[in-house]
Amino acid sequence: MHDIAVIGAGRIGKIHAANANAHPRIRLKYVVDPVADAAQSLASATGASVATLDEVLADSSVAGVVIASSTDTHLDYGLRAIGAGKSVFCEKPIDLDLQKARAAAPALGGDAPLFLGFNRRFDPNFRRLYDRINSGEMGRLETLHIISHDPAPPSIDYVRGSGGMFKDMTIHDFDMARWLLGEEPVDVYAAGATMVDPAIAEAGDIDTAKIILRTASGRICVISNSRRSGYGYDQRIEAFCAKGLLRAGNMVSSTVETWTATGASSDPLQNFFLDRYAQAYREEMTHFAEILGGANPLVGFQDGVAALAIAEAALESHLTAAVLNVAH
Amino acid sequence: MHDIAVIGAGRIGKIHAANANAHPRIRLKYVVDPVADAAQSLASATGASVATLDEVLADSSVAGVVIASSTDTHLDYGLRAIGAGKSVFCEKPIDLDLQKARAAAPALGGDAPLFLGFNRRFDPNFRRLYDRINSGEMGRLETLHIISHDPAPPSIDYVRGSGGMFKDMTIHDFDMARWLLGEEPVDVYAAGATMVDPAIAEAGDIDTAKIILRTASGRICVISNSRRSGYGYDQRIEAFCAKGLLRAGNMVSSTVETWTATGASSDPLQNFFLDRYAQAYREEMTHFAEILGGANPLVGFQDGVAALAIAEAALESHLTAAVLNVAH
Amino acid sequence: MHDIAVIGAGRIGKIHAANANAHPRIRLKYVVDPVADAAQSLASATGASVATLDEVLADSSVAGVVIASSTDTHLDYGLRAIGAGKSVFCEKPIDLDLQKARAAAPALGGDAPLFLGFNRRFDPNFRRLYDRINSGEMGRLETLHIISHDPAPPSIDYVRGSGGMFKDMTIHDFDMARWLLGEEPVDVYAAGATMVDPAIAEAGDIDTAKIILRTASGRICVISNSRRSGYGYDQRIEAFCAKGLLRAGNMVSSTVETWTATGASSDPLQNFFLDRYAQAYREEMTHFAEILGGANPLVGFQDGVAALAIAEAALESHLTAAVLNVAH
Amino acid sequence: MHDIAVIGAGRIGKIHAANANAHPRIRLKYVVDPVADAAQSLASATGASVATLDEVLADSSVAGVVIASSTDTHLDYGLRAIGAGKSVFCEKPIDLDLQKARAAAPALGGDAPLFLGFNRRFDPNFRRLYDRINSGEMGRLETLHIISHDPAPPSIDYVRGSGGMFKDMTIHDFDMARWLLGEEPVDVYAAGATMVDPAIAEAGDIDTAKIILRTASGRICVISNSRRSGYGYDQRIEAFCAKGLLRAGNMVSSTVETWTATGASSDPLQNFFLDRYAQAYREEMTHFAEILGGANPLVGFQDGVAALAIAEAALESHLTAAVLNVAH
Repeated sequence: MHDIAVIGAGRIGKIHAANANAHPRIRLKYVVDPVADAAQSLASATGASVATLDEVLADSSVAGVVIASSTDTHLDYGLRAIGAGKSVFCEKPIDLDLQKARAAAPALGGDAPLFLGFNRRFDPNFRRLYDRINSGEMGRLETLHIISHDPAPPSIDYVRGSGGMFKDMTIHDFDMARWLLGEEPVDVYAAGATMVDPAIAEAGDIDTAKIILRTASGRICVISNSRRSGYGYDQRIEAFCAKGLLRAGNMVSSTVETWTATGASSDPLQNFFLDRYAQAYREEMTHFAEILGGANPLVGFQDGVAALAIAEAALESHLTAAVLNVAH
Repeated sequence: MHDIAVIGAGRIGKIHAANANAHPRIRLKYVVDPVADAAQSLASATGASVATLDEVLADSSVAGVVIASSTDTHLDYGLRAIGAGKSVFCEKPIDLDLQKARAAAPALGGDAPLFLGFNRRFDPNFRRLYDRINSGEMGRLETLHIISHDPAPPSIDYVRGSGGMFKDMTIHDFDMARWLLGEEPVDVYAAGATMVDPAIAEAGDIDTAKIILRTASGRICVISNSRRSGYGYDQRIEAFCAKGLLRAGNMVSSTVETWTATGASSDPLQNFFLDRYAQAYREEMTHFAEILGGANPLVGFQDGVAALAIAEAALESHLTAAVLNVAH
Repeated sequence: MHDIAVIGAGRIGKIHAANANAHPRIRLKYVVDPVADAAQSLASATGASVATLDEVLADSSVAGVVIASSTDTHLDYGLRAIGAGKSVFCEKPIDLDLQKARAAAPALGGDAPLFLGFNRRFDPNFRRLYDRINSGEMGRLETLHIISHDPAPPSIDYVRGSGGMFKDMTIHDFDMARWLLGEEPVDVYAAGATMVDPAIAEAGDIDTAKIILRTASGRICVISNSRRSGYGYDQRIEAFCAKGLLRAGNMVSSTVETWTATGASSDPLQNFFLDRYAQAYREEMTHFAEILGGANPLVGFQDGVAALAIAEAALESHLTAAVLNVAH
Repeated sequence: MHDIAVIGAGRIGKIHAANANAHPRIRLKYVVDPVADAAQSLASATGASVATLDEVLADSSVAGVVIASSTDTHLDYGLRAIGAGKSVFCEKPIDLDLQKARAAAPALGGDAPLFLGFNRRFDPNFRRLYDRINSGEMGRLETLHIISHDPAPPSIDYVRGSGGMFKDMTIHDFDMARWLLGEEPVDVYAAGATMVDPAIAEAGDIDTAKIILRTASGRICVISNSRRSGYGYDQRIEAFCAKGLLRAGNMVSSTVETWTATGASSDPLQNFFLDRYAQAYREEMTHFAEILGGANPLVGFQDGVAALAIAEAALESHLTAAVLNVAH
């Protein structure tokens, strides 16, 4: 049984706390959050204790920490936890500043047991897609389409602190592209726009983008993003291989169909990312248990830096309307 | 080039006339209809001449006749045309009276070139299903589900002259069952009801039925009928085989889907039997060309009698709420 | 927090024990099983204690018991637990003997807090179907098709002790029919056969059936059963309503599709009932928590008796090849 | 009845000749082809006469000509036919040389009755998509995805004379983009590659591309091309609108599905463009009949020039790996 702490008692911290508790080999010992009420509430619900980060790091019985606090703390807490000998499960993104993130490589890269929470890699459907691609039975993967449209835009406050759509939202798709292609993109063209809400433009961000990545070996990836779909959480991937197409489709809220004079209609798409990726979050905790048991993280610090580098190049491409090299 | 005549200038006669004209090896020479305006109108549209049935049968250049007149004329016209040495393409049903139909067997059964227009056998989807079943790759066909629901009920006048739902509508499904199972049903249970329109009950008919057929070798077939679907023309078949399931689905009016917050919706099902089976009617004419060239009919008089025998047993089963033997 | 005991440490008992433990308002206190190893193993895995049924019933801190032991114990244990003032969550079927079950009505019918585990009522898809039917937006439900095909037949030993396919497998479908139709069937015709394995016939049972039920108000239900599908766990329902069709489809193991020259293929259907109904079992435990808190069971003893009565009539119908009344 | 001539007795000329003959208001009078056997064969099959282009243009009874000859003759024959007062139905592309095409604008642009055969606009599914977009019920069209993958690459000889993939294949997609977006793209980025066959690269062409177009009003369109799908003719469009998504899917060869232990499989996609667009070619001929009756072409010379301009910019973008303006 591995004792762990969850840092951050917000929406995603609660998910990880619940999954930790439900895992047969993990016990949630501490909850850390500067907001005392939030920390206490989550601790009470889970049978854990409230503590400070210092207390957590000083407790030698704590084997790991889950960093689910605000993005600007990820690097700092990660460095401190790794320094204290803990295994780390850190939410994405690793940071919003590529330079700053790269500076942490000596400590967090290499063999450091830091697991970066790119949750989509743990979705059973995308995992199945990855396995099918890598089985080789469909021949070489040639091109890739990633559609990632949110149901509805976040608040403008969220947008302002998000680091921009590429670092906040597309970063998932950059990670999926790297993971599924099995190599790094060498250049990027990002056509961004604000179509959903003028307030997003006023906040200096975009809400819509189409992106083309090219890899050294000549493969091509298209990413489609929107902050608002109008029809639910659209998370689809098409992998065009030499012998055919592999596709991962959307999750529907039920299998019920309604046939009327206007056609056959499914039930709505799953609408909320915590529903859509509920199983992925559970699988992440299972993987963290493996890391606590000595396994290497399947996705780590360098993956976070690589995705961030693509996001920076995409932003520059969008701003200059030019094709840009990705500086790895 | 084979010269033919079409008897009956109504809805289905027009279809056959147009298909005959479009066929490279068939020329429509005559149209016959007691309603002079109807006959003249179809003749003008197709470049054919108006004639009487006697004139058609006396013209040695006429190789075949299409009987698309009212049901009560099918047997009589069929006998006269076969007697005159013509090939015959006769609409279903062969007759509404099993005794009377059986009496025509010496003339119309056996080798007589009479092709009975059970159009569903010529639908490319059901033909494909038939071929898949008979390829043997799915193992033995064990049970069969036939769903056949009309979009909306016909007029009460039509109902009154139809011979009842089993002989008018289900007769298609009885034929499909015989064709796909490759053997005769030995008993039948039909649970009928009037759910759509009380006027249908007043006319002595039903509008809804579920039917179970059993064959000598122990296979079981379920037929589902309704005179009104509310969602289009529902024509589906499921063939449960030892190694898996073969299914033929519905035809949708287009491939366009609409995704909104309430779900993903297809375009409507095809709604009208002349649209749904347009290709089947063309394939029937192609088969008639083969018969005019000397081929044997794929479906003939005895098939019409066998389906009628099942329909009579089904009606009796419905009226007595009992399982009945089918008298072949 | 409600303390409960699970009686029976077999496959289904383990599921209920795990779900009880994961529920925030239920604590698993005891495991009961005559096989000491099985009881101890499940108790160890769940942090519960091993006890006898007498000890459980004598412990006033125990609010409820889950009866997951062999079918022949359901009635006896249910009577004893209700007699001891416990709430009961009893696996289906209530018994294999209709007479014996009816004799327990004075004690277990009425207000007794006995929840009978017809799990399909708690599947989110079928629940959604039920809600859509009962919302009235599609008009009156007229006819119903229930397809329920198992992936592969059970062992012959299981078949011998099962009470026969109608009481073991179709009983779920009889319950679904009653639940969705909202009324009792008045007569039944069951066409059964052995198509999958001759050993099943030698054991006195069947493995395939098509069944027609009719209700007093004239609705018609078709049930299709097979002990072997060849393609996974086929659990579909079609509800034909006055204004259209409501359908609940199968669960696929992932959303991944493979498009090749031979067509577009889904991943396999979910194959195992414990996977297919995993969520339903969790929802059952949630409902048992509501009952422990004072709610009335949504499905109880009388539902078990009613389904058993239909199963007996179906068996007689199959044996006599006749339409039979259902004696409620 | 309008008499017409078909120029070019190759694959597409045969299609247009057959559709002309089947149309109730068009009669095929002449076939023109420099290969005497080809001309004679098509003329015999259709009941037309063989003639030279000069003879056709001099015959005042000829109301229209279908130009289905090689691409390098389109402009010249179009100019001559328009000059002779004929209505023209000209296959795409209008030419491979943008300069040369533009020079013909005074004669062929404006009111000249020249119908350019961008067949996809006449496919009922894409027409339905267009109508749904323009009904406004889904809100403003924001972004567009066009997937257009051929089943298998053409011969290297064909590739050499094709003008390159952008002018030969993508030109259809550029036209679809202009038609569905309702405005011109202002810049283009095309990432092309050779993944299918090195011989295509040796011939100076590519076989794979992903393209991003942006319009003046800020809309974005993605086009995906491949000369080889491995799974049939992949022709899909997704129109992301403010209120939801409109999609047009692929055509399957039948509605038959096969369910086995490995999943549920459709029948293959339609594989050949003449099958996939058979209905579109018929609709084109119907539209040509309207033009012969005085209607204006729905798609004409200027559409051909505009698509060619985008193709030239795309080629330059591919060669320079830069985002380029489209010079309209």
